[in-house]
Amino acid sequence: MTRLALFVAVLLSGTACFAQQALWGGAQIESPVINDNGTVTFRCVAPKAVKVQVTGDFLPTRKVQTEWGEFDAPGVGEFTEGKNGLWEYTTPEAVAPELYLYNLIIDGNQTLDFNNMWINRDVSTINNMFLVPGGRSDYYAVRNVPHGTVSKVWYPCTLTKNNRRMTVYTPAGYNPTGKTRYPVVYILHGAGGDEDAWVTEGRASQILDNMIAEGRCKPMIAVFTNGNISQEAAPLENSTGYVRPVFRQEKQMEGSFEETFPEIVKYIDSHYKTLANKKNRAICGLSMGGFHTMYISLNYPDLFNYSGMFSAAVGVSDPKISPLYQDVDAKLATYFSKKPALLWIGIGKTDFLYNQNEELRAKLDAAGYPYTYLETDGGHIWKNWRIYLTEFLPKLF
Amino acid sequence: MTRLALFVAVLLSGTACFAQQALWGGAQIESPVINDNGTVTFRCVAPKAVKVQVTGDFLPTRKVQTEWGEFDAPGVGEFTEGKNGLWEYTTPEAVAPELYLYNLIIDGNQTLDFNNMWINRDVSTINNMFLVPGGRSDYYAVRNVPHGTVSKVWYPCTLTKNNRRMTVYTPAGYNPTGKTRYPVVYILHGAGGDEDAWVTEGRASQILDNMIAEGRCKPMIAVFTNGNISQEAAPLENSTGYVRPVFRQEKQMEGSFEETFPEIVKYIDSHYKTLANKKNRAICGLSMGGFHTMYISLNYPDLFNYSGMFSAAVGVSDPKISPLYQDVDAKLATYFSKKPALLWIGIGKTDFLYNQNEELRAKLDAAGYPYTYLETDGGHIWKNWRIYLTEFLPKLF
Repeated sequence: MTRLALFVAVLLSGTACFAQQALWGGAQIESPVINDNGTVTFRCVAPKAVKVQVTGDFLPTRKVQTEWGEFDAPGVGEFTEGKNGLWEYTTPEAVAPELYLYNLIIDGNQTLDFNNMWINRDVSTINNMFLVPGGRSDYYAVRNVPHGTVSKVWYPCTLTKNNRRMTVYTPAGYNPTGKTRYPVVYILHGAGGDEDAWVTEGRASQILDNMIAEGRCKPMIAVFTNGNISQEAAPLENSTGYVRPVFRQEKQMEGSFEETFPEIVKYIDSHYKTLANKKNRAICGLSMGGFHTMYISLNYPDLFNYSGMFSAAVGVSDPKISPLYQDVDAKLATYFSKKPALLWIGIGKTDFLYNQNEELRAKLDAAGYPYTYLETDGGHIWKNWRIYLTEFLPKLF
Repeated sequence: MTRLALFVAVLLSGTACFAQQALWGGAQIESPVINDNGTVTFRCVAPKAVKVQVTGDFLPTRKVQTEWGEFDAPGVGEFTEGKNGLWEYTTPEAVAPELYLYNLIIDGNQTLDFNNMWINRDVSTINNMFLVPGGRSDYYAVRNVPHGTVSKVWYPCTLTKNNRRMTVYTPAGYNPTGKTRYPVVYILHGAGGDEDAWVTEGRASQILDNMIAEGRCKPMIAVFTNGNISQEAAPLENSTGYVRPVFRQEKQMEGSFEETFPEIVKYIDSHYKTLANKKNRAICGLSMGGFHTMYISLNYPDLFNYSGMFSAAVGVSDPKISPLYQDVDAKLATYFSKKPALLWIGIGKTDFLYNQNEELRAKLDAAGYPYTYLETDGGHIWKNWRIYLTEFLPKLF
């Protein structure tokens, strides 16, 4: 055996995955596999298991009743045991193009598909992901196109007196010492999310790479802030430690984050090659980020020419909490008097925030304020937010 | 119930974690917890489980025999079942400061600690992580110090005729249009790793942030390349798809990656505020990256003034594969005739590459070539590579 072969053999053996790290271990099983007929096969080695299941948003949903109403819960697929403890499940039908989340359940315990390295943290939930290519889902894939740069950037925040983290996308060809300047879209996450969410399951950098490459949207800078004002950064990037993220209601949607937004815009304009004017600025966000988008747009009507509210939590503001949530009617009048290029509203038919959005639209309709509206199937889900982003971006600049 | 409270309640309910995403689900259990006496407690809810165990590199190792020799394998800790399916394990003794990897084993099936959001992919192995603060391990933590920017950057590669991805760290205060220029360290991963490895379990950006803040090393740019020439990028960032990473021996350590290195240096010098000369350039790498470091340093002796070989696979080159691996003695003579500022070698006493490094040192000693050597406990492990980086960086520039 040559030394190179021995080196590889030791790496492949993966004898002691912790003690000899960066090594290769475990059975080399492929899971999931998208079959030629469009069905998807999942595999799992669990010789001691009695029952193996998969649950995820690619399976037909079932209705679940709770004290807060009826929700769609994902279905469950049952694996069959084969030889040597190899379990397998194939979907009965072809799975439509989309980016999906799933988990395995072994003997009633939630676990991951360890043969799929694509894992995503969404707040305090961990899931595997897989992508069925085709249609709109091709925007979510890494394709052989020029790629922008994705950076984790810390900026000083006057209000919180610390440094806070954001994600910044600069398009392919961006040159910090060049002459070309770009418009900027600010893209905001939902409650409990953070500056990572839109570039992980949100696929925003892939969407931008692919749509820019196809000429479907203009080359632009994108900024993904952290809307949890009590957080410096995503949970594992905080100097406060590595604890499980905890939902901190008292520090969300109380006006502070929105107040810091003009400073964020100023930071971006002074550190990047931006077209630093309202005409070349857009803002959008999902759920709480849609709420933030609304109140930032209304309170700073000279900042953004384009605003997008995705499944926005529009009806949850309390005027007693912050002056930013007061005098909404007057602020709406001012906002529309400045003739913004676009107010875009998107929501799913079964979203638990549907009624709040319906009320907002009724108010806008009654006042004759213009907006663009998209209603999709489904609820408060990433599938919709990715769709809304691909609808919103081509309308900008 | 106010609308804000209802909104939060729905988010907290996490009824349907896939169908209503970005929501909060699961029991709010804290695991792991570092106790005041230094022991660590792990918790897990598994009402249907018969046996719950934890395995990781914080537990005393046990010896395992294989056809390739004896290895250290991690020990196993046994959980105890309490009320309502809550299982718990506390280490018998205090756990020393360090960054650790671990997994749970439920009824014989490997799984993650779902209450710990800190998850790391190391090639095709997925583990939870936790950090016990104190001592050197404080360099690995995100601390309240100025933070550099970490960017995922695509550069054109002439040899492979595609764009390839690297990670670039620019120190706090770096200004692409400013006058200050910085030295550059290139930091290379091991076999099967990629451009993500050093900034995930390698903690290189935290190490740089913290050591720069303490004045223990100079502010510098750090570049983390992808040494697998057949890969555009880390597995999930490839345009070729999202399959499980597979060890591709034929495209590693065959000279091509090393050949592309001068082009990488040229790219960095033309896109960043670098001090673009040998005096202000360093290179280091672990395992295969140590091998790359050696052959890049020897074949391009005018590029780097500082070279660091961490647990390097120094003895696995085959001269028949590439001219870069030929005439090593003559290249060593040329390399040392140019009086490099530092050749640094570090290895663990139980590393399976120890003998190869011993042979290299004997050769250097015989020729009277100067180098700095550090021998540590332990084997081919990230703990050592992080230690070596913290030893190497203060010696640069």
